[in-house]
Amino acid sequence: MIGRTHHCGELRPEHVGEKVQLKGWVQTRRDLGQVIFLDVRDRSGIVQVVFSPEVDKGALETAERIRSEYVIDIEGTVVERDPNTVNEKIETGTIEVQAHKVDILNAAKALPFQIEADTEASEDVRLKYRYLDLRRPDMQETFKLRHKATKLIRDFLDEAAFMEIETPMLTKSTPEGARDYLVPSRVHHGKFYALPQSPQLFKQLLMVSGFERYYQIVRCFRDEDLRADRQPEFTQVDIETSFMDKEDLLAMTEQMMARILKETKNVELTLPFPRLTYEEAMNRFGSDKPDLRFDMELVELSEIVKDSPFKVFQGALAAGGIVKGLNLKGGADKLSRKEIDALTDFVKQYGAKGLAWLKVEEDGLKGPIAKFFEGELEQALREAMGAEPGDLLFFGADKKQVVFDSLGALRLKFGKQFDLIDSSQFNFLWVVDFPLVEYDEEAKRYVALHHPFTSPKKEDLELLASDPDSVRADAYDLVLNGYELGGGSQRIYKRDIQEQMFHALGFSKEEAQEQFGFLLNAFEYGTPPHGGIALGLDRLIMLLAGRTNLRDTIAFPKTASASCLLTEAPGEVSVEQLIDLNLSVIGQKAEKVNV
Amino acid sequence: MIGRTHHCGELRPEHVGEKVQLKGWVQTRRDLGQVIFLDVRDRSGIVQVVFSPEVDKGALETAERIRSEYVIDIEGTVVERDPNTVNEKIETGTIEVQAHKVDILNAAKALPFQIEADTEASEDVRLKYRYLDLRRPDMQETFKLRHKATKLIRDFLDEAAFMEIETPMLTKSTPEGARDYLVPSRVHHGKFYALPQSPQLFKQLLMVSGFERYYQIVRCFRDEDLRADRQPEFTQVDIETSFMDKEDLLAMTEQMMARILKETKNVELTLPFPRLTYEEAMNRFGSDKPDLRFDMELVELSEIVKDSPFKVFQGALAAGGIVKGLNLKGGADKLSRKEIDALTDFVKQYGAKGLAWLKVEEDGLKGPIAKFFEGELEQALREAMGAEPGDLLFFGADKKQVVFDSLGALRLKFGKQFDLIDSSQFNFLWVVDFPLVEYDEEAKRYVALHHPFTSPKKEDLELLASDPDSVRADAYDLVLNGYELGGGSQRIYKRDIQEQMFHALGFSKEEAQEQFGFLLNAFEYGTPPHGGIALGLDRLIMLLAGRTNLRDTIAFPKTASASCLLTEAPGEVSVEQLIDLNLSVIGQKAEKVNV
Repeated sequence: MIGRTHHCGELRPEHVGEKVQLKGWVQTRRDLGQVIFLDVRDRSGIVQVVFSPEVDKGALETAERIRSEYVIDIEGTVVERDPNTVNEKIETGTIEVQAHKVDILNAAKALPFQIEADTEASEDVRLKYRYLDLRRPDMQETFKLRHKATKLIRDFLDEAAFMEIETPMLTKSTPEGARDYLVPSRVHHGKFYALPQSPQLFKQLLMVSGFERYYQIVRCFRDEDLRADRQPEFTQVDIETSFMDKEDLLAMTEQMMARILKETKNVELTLPFPRLTYEEAMNRFGSDKPDLRFDMELVELSEIVKDSPFKVFQGALAAGGIVKGLNLKGGADKLSRKEIDALTDFVKQYGAKGLAWLKVEEDGLKGPIAKFFEGELEQALREAMGAEPGDLLFFGADKKQVVFDSLGALRLKFGKQFDLIDSSQFNFLWVVDFPLVEYDEEAKRYVALHHPFTSPKKEDLELLASDPDSVRADAYDLVLNGYELGGGSQRIYKRDIQEQMFHALGFSKEEAQEQFGFLLNAFEYGTPPHGGIALGLDRLIMLLAGRTNLRDTIAFPKTASASCLLTEAPGEVSVEQLIDLNLSVIGQKAEKVNV
Repeated sequence: MIGRTHHCGELRPEHVGEKVQLKGWVQTRRDLGQVIFLDVRDRSGIVQVVFSPEVDKGALETAERIRSEYVIDIEGTVVERDPNTVNEKIETGTIEVQAHKVDILNAAKALPFQIEADTEASEDVRLKYRYLDLRRPDMQETFKLRHKATKLIRDFLDEAAFMEIETPMLTKSTPEGARDYLVPSRVHHGKFYALPQSPQLFKQLLMVSGFERYYQIVRCFRDEDLRADRQPEFTQVDIETSFMDKEDLLAMTEQMMARILKETKNVELTLPFPRLTYEEAMNRFGSDKPDLRFDMELVELSEIVKDSPFKVFQGALAAGGIVKGLNLKGGADKLSRKEIDALTDFVKQYGAKGLAWLKVEEDGLKGPIAKFFEGELEQALREAMGAEPGDLLFFGADKKQVVFDSLGALRLKFGKQFDLIDSSQFNFLWVVDFPLVEYDEEAKRYVALHHPFTSPKKEDLELLASDPDSVRADAYDLVLNGYELGGGSQRIYKRDIQEQMFHALGFSKEEAQEQFGFLLNAFEYGTPPHGGIALGLDRLIMLLAGRTNLRDTIAFPKTASASCLLTEAPGEVSVEQLIDLNLSVIGQKAEKVNV
C-alpha cells in the first residue's frame, strides 16, 4: 500500500461512497465483539473507522491486534453514520470509514500518559516524553499557531521591503548585558566565542552596510538563572531600519501586530496603541510593563499625608521616599484580617518593610492606623483614592522603587485573585521615554537600562556627562497584557556620542576601543541614522495561545536548571574532546587531560 | 527634515517636475567649480543630484563639504537631463535632481577601498571592513538574491503544508559524525551542551510527535578544519516528512528547485532530474557529485588491458584494483610534455602512484607506454575510449577509490582548464543507492556514510549483519554543477532495525542505549515511516549567484582559521567567566582560576 488519498480530519458527507486511503495513529479502539471501532488521528483531525466481518474478515482480524497509538494504513469506503451514532464533537462526526484493508505500520507500547488536551501528567514526565506530549491536541494547536504567526510576520516584513539576513551565532563575548554562553575555540586555544544575546551589533553594522531594512527571526542566548518566563535560548523577531524615525517604526510594528491578531485570533486592534511614558507607567501602575486590562491605579499621596502624624509615612518622606496608595474596591469584605496580614509578607519580597492599610466603613476609616488620618486628612485621603464604604486601602511608603515594585505587584495580585482581568482582551501599549542609564550599586557605576547603543533623546543629550540619571532614552517597549513583548530604540550613530555614552558607563577610551572598536570605527564611514526593535516570539505565541508557561510554546524546551529532560543535555564529553579544546574541568583528575 | 518621498533608484522621466526628498550615500562627487554633481546611492540604486548657485546657494555651499560615502538628506526637483549628458549605464540616467536643500546626516572618512563591484581589496581587508564590503553592489545583489530564494523556499513549503518548527541549539554531544562545538554548562559543572551539526534527531522526534511535515531554515555547526566551501556555522534547509516515500520527496524537492530557478534566474528546469546510482556515478565520473555539464567519462579498461604486458596495470589488477582511462579529446596539442608530467603530481594528491598516458597520432599510439599496447590491444583500447588522432589518453590503475578520485579530479581539472563547462547551466541530478556504511581504517570499525539513522534499502536489510559493505542505503544526494547541494534518506523507524544498525557500527547495546536511548524509546510509541532531506542554503545561493566563494554568501563569515576579522572573535574571556564555568585553560596560571 502506498499513497494516501485523504487526511482523516477532512472527510465530510460529500465524500460518502468514495474509496479512501488514510494513514495515522489510533486514538482509541472500541471492541464490540463482532465489530471494532478505531478513532484514527492524523495532523488534520480524527475520523472513525469501522471493521466488521461483513466488510472484510482479514481487516477485522488485524484490527484485533491494534492498540492505541499504533500507526496504521487503512483502505476503506466513506459511509454515512446512523443518525443515532453521529458524534457532534468532531468535525467528521456524521460519517465513518468502513475498512476493507489495514496495515500496521508500527506498533506502540502502553503510553506514560494519554494523548488528550488536558493531561494529568507532571511537566517533568511531559518533557521526558516530549515526543508524546507534542501529540496532544493543545500542543499541536500551539505549534500550528506558532507556524502561522511566524509566516505572517515574514510575509508582512517581506512586503514592507525588509530583507532577511542571517547573523553569526559564534560571536565575541562582551562584558555588557547578561551572562554569555561561551564556546571554546579548538583552533585558538584559550579563546572563546560567545553565543549572541541578540544580533544587536551585527544588525547595526548591516545598517552601516546600507541594507536599510533588515529582519531575522533568530535564536538568542542568555546564561541567566531561569524564571517561568525565561529560557536559556529564545527566539526574537529582530528588526532594524535606516532613515525611519521612531513614529514610523512604532506605526509599522502596530500594523504588524494588528495583522497577526486579525489573522490568528480574529481580533481587530485599535491603532495607534496607547502610550505611557516610563514615569507615568511607574507612577500609575508601579510597573514599566503595566497590565491595562484593569484599572486600580496607584495614587500619589506624598503631598496629602505629609502632615499626618503617622511616623512610618513621615520617615519615608523625610528619607526622600514617597507614599502611594492602592484602593481595592469593595475589598473590605473580600479579605480577612489574617489575609491582610499575610500581604505584608508578599510585599516584603519587593523590599517593603510593611504594608499599612485602612478599611473604609460607613462611619469612617477603620484599622490600626486609622487614628492618624482624621478630619481634613481623612477627607483628602478618601477623595484622592476615590474611597467609598466597603473599600480596602493599602499604602506603600518607602523609596520610590520599593513603593512601585510592591504596590505594582499587589495590584497585579489583586487583579488575578479577584478576577478583574478580562482574559479575552489583547491589551497593547507602548512605554516610552525610559531612563537611559541606571546606577548599579554592585558594580558602582552606571549601566545602560536597555543597552549601550541606545540613543539619548536629543533634548537630554547635554545632560549625559553632568546628570546621567535624568537623561531619557529614545527607547520604547511594547507591552501586551502586562508582559514586555519587546523593546526598541533609535540608536547612537555618531562616534562622538557613542564615546560619550561609554564614558558615562565608566569605560576608559581604551576599554571602549578594545571591546567595541569595530563599531566605533564603522560609525566613521558613513553610518545612517537607524533604529530597530526586537520582539520575543516565544512570549508572543504564549499570549496568543492563551498560555502561561513559556515552555509550552517551545518544541524542546529546557527546565529551570537549563536541562533537557528528553536528551539529557548537557552531558559528559570525552577527555579527547577537552584535550582538543585545551581545557580542564577544575577538580577533575588533571592527569587525564594534561597532555 | 523628515520623511523620504522616493528611493534614488526609482526616479524616472515620469517624475520630472516633482519635488522629492531622498536619503542615501554619496557614491561620487564631481566639482565643476560653479556646479557640483553628486551620485547618490541607496538600496534601490543611484541618481545624479546637481547643486548650482542658480537653484540654491546654501545647498551648494553644503555640497562643497560633502565627500564620498557621506550620508545625506536631499530635497530637490526632478528634471530631465540634457540629451548630451544622459547616462545609459544607470536606470535613472535620463533624469537628475536639482537640489535646493541638503543636510549632512553623517560624515565619512576616506575608505580603505572603493564601493564598486570589482574591488582590488584583499579578502582580509574586505572581511575586516565587512560593513563596507557589503555596500558593494555585487554583495548587495547576492543578499537580495539570498532573501528572495529563502522567501521562495518558505512560501513553497508553507503551501505544501509544512510547519516551521524550531529545534534547540543547546543540545547533547554525540560521538557520531563530525566534531561538535561544545558549550560548557554553568549550572552543571563538568557537563557540556553541543551545538547541533543538524537537527536530525529532533526532526525525527517531531515525526514521532505527528507533525507529519516539518521544515526549518536552521543554523548548524561543525568544528572541522575549514575548506573554501566550508564554514564553522552554515545554514541548511531542513525538511522531514511522514508517510511520504522517496519518490514523493524527490518530486517535491525538484518542484521547489524549479520554482527557485524560475523566480530567481528565469531558468526553466526539466523535471524530473536525472538520477545516477552511486556506483554508476563513481564508475562514469569518478565522483559521487559529478558535474554533468560536460562529458568526458571515465572508461572501464580492466577487462581490455588484462592481457597487456604493462606491469603497472598487471600489478594493479592482480592486487584487486581496476584500470580506467580518460580521453582528453584533441588534447595532444593542448598539453606539452612538461605539462603532462606535471599532472603526475596532481593525481598523487589523490593517492595515485603515477599517471600513464598515450598520444593518439595518425600512425598509432605514442608515448612511453605505447609499446605495451599494440595490435589487437591497441584496437580494443582505441575503440573503448573513442580515441581519434589528436586525442590524449590518461590511465589510472590502482585501488578502485584511488582511480575514481584521481581520474575524477583530472576530469574536473580538464573541464575547467579547457573551458568545457557551460557556466550558464544549472545541472541538477540525484545520486541514489549510496552504500549504507564504509569501513573506517582509523577507527577500525564501520561508520555510517550518511548518518546512523538512514534506512537500508529493504531488499538489502538481511545483509546488514553478514555483509555490511554491500548494503545500500535508501539515501539520495542532490547534486548541482558538481556540488553536493544536499542529502536525504528514508529513516529507520523501528527499534529493532535501529539496534541492528548500531550493532553494525560497533556500538554495544549499552552504548546505543546511553547515547540514543531517547530515540530508541521513541520508536516504541508509534513512530510513522518517515524521511527527509537537508539542503545547504549557503551553497545554493553561491551557485545561484554564480560565485565560487562560500564566504561571499554569508554576511559575517569566518576565515579558514574560524576567526571573524571584524569582531576579532573568538576572544579572551575573563577569569570570572571561567570560574563560573568551573574550567581552566591548560597551561594558563592555575592559581588565577582555582577557587
